[in-house]
Amino acid sequence: MTASAQIVERSLEVRCGGRRVPTALWLPVLASHRRFAVPLVLVGHGGGGHKRAPIVVDMAEGLAREHGIATLAIDGPVNGDRDTNDAAAHALRKQDRHAYRRKYYLEQYDSMVDDWRAALDAAQQLPEIGKGPVGYFGLSMGTRFGVPLIAAEPRIRAAVIGLFGHREGLETSQRVYDDVVKIDVPVLFLQQLGDEEVGQRAYHELFEHIGTPDKRLHANPGGHAAVPRSELHAARAFLARKLKAQRDG
Amino acid sequence: MTASAQIVERSLEVRCGGRRVPTALWLPVLASHRRFAVPLVLVGHGGGGHKRAPIVVDMAEGLAREHGIATLAIDGPVNGDRDTNDAAAHALRKQDRHAYRRKYYLEQYDSMVDDWRAALDAAQQLPEIGKGPVGYFGLSMGTRFGVPLIAAEPRIRAAVIGLFGHREGLETSQRVYDDVVKIDVPVLFLQQLGDEEVGQRAYHELFEHIGTPDKRLHANPGGHAAVPRSELHAARAFLARKLKAQRDG
Repeated sequence: MTASAQIVERSLEVRCGGRRVPTALWLPVLASHRRFAVPLVLVGHGGGGHKRAPIVVDMAEGLAREHGIATLAIDGPVNGDRDTNDAAAHALRKQDRHAYRRKYYLEQYDSMVDDWRAALDAAQQLPEIGKGPVGYFGLSMGTRFGVPLIAAEPRIRAAVIGLFGHREGLETSQRVYDDVVKIDVPVLFLQQLGDEEVGQRAYHELFEHIGTPDKRLHANPGGHAAVPRSELHAARAFLARKLKAQRDG
Repeated sequence: MTASAQIVERSLEVRCGGRRVPTALWLPVLASHRRFAVPLVLVGHGGGGHKRAPIVVDMAEGLAREHGIATLAIDGPVNGDRDTNDAAAHALRKQDRHAYRRKYYLEQYDSMVDDWRAALDAAQQLPEIGKGPVGYFGLSMGTRFGVPLIAAEPRIRAAVIGLFGHREGLETSQRVYDDVVKIDVPVLFLQQLGDEEVGQRAYHELFEHIGTPDKRLHANPGGHAAVPRSELHAARAFLARKLKAQRDG
């Protein structure tokens, strides 16, 4: 349970394919008092994070305070409150061996999309959540699992992705490249110029592959985890602007 | 004379090397009433523009309204109120032949830096203008003549440049490449992904050459003249943030 002056958390029970999907849903405080529904942004956390990681909660607070937008997050395939009776996930948590982890991520690629869509279905059942266009924000692992979701889900109409490229070789990231071509909604792509995990050429190739011509790239100094706060602020403004334009248009 | 709810223009007489330097200086309205000095941003206009072109005045209004910052502009070597007794400049205005124009730009490269510095000296004589760090904003031709200024002038401590690359061959843009290496202040570099005048590789090379590691790139969809309003807003916020950090630090 997270509460601040800006947001209030609502519980949301979601099941998909026999699994429980661990969710976190934050509403702007005003939305919980008023009678109108608010827009929604889905936030996918990065590797090692979880649905209530600081960057996720910061995004939820910023989206609420600056734009009156609600935020929905779910746990990735390994972290947070995912069921631990899966032996593979359990082993991955302990050994943190990158090659195995990424192979496991690939195995969960389709089920993560299913889980996100089930969570979105459930969130839109609430009277506080609007039925209009939805945004997506997810960097690094949040891009890995966000790209297939954005490509598959017509309710998502604007996205912020980045901090991702084929650092691990084609065998596990090829599906991301295949799916990024299908994206046809406005995209803001974030890059770190001193990224120690993703090569600059890999960044460039992934950006080039994004299907829509309505894409823009922001490249900032510093390493993988050094995305500036001003850029996160700009990302929220981008999503709010694009969603509003599509509601109004 | 420009006046709005946000800015008031002050006349500023500047001479340099025997030339009159045509200037435009706008102060936030509040600064003209109060007793404190405000920060200053220099705005270099693009090709075909002049010191009171709409994008210059828009920047001045935005800097004043959003950040309480003053704006100084001067005419480029050909346009605006530059003396017309120079036969070469006069011919250039009439024939608009790109190769000749760029050769002329190269000839004016050093004197434009001198003119800018003289204008900055004069502006900082005014009690309303602070003596602290100064920003620079200039795209396209505003980058051509801005890069040597930023490299030479220690009072400039943050810059927004872009929409420029070696489209005309090395002989006239080589000095820009030589000078961009010397820039050691924070830079925001703007790129247009559908630019019909500057190639994407040229953009990439110029950005790579910027001397400081404290550089970031924003690439947006659309042609040379299609820089989004949101990006100009972000550029103003970038300059205000970097100047404030250096005053406070």
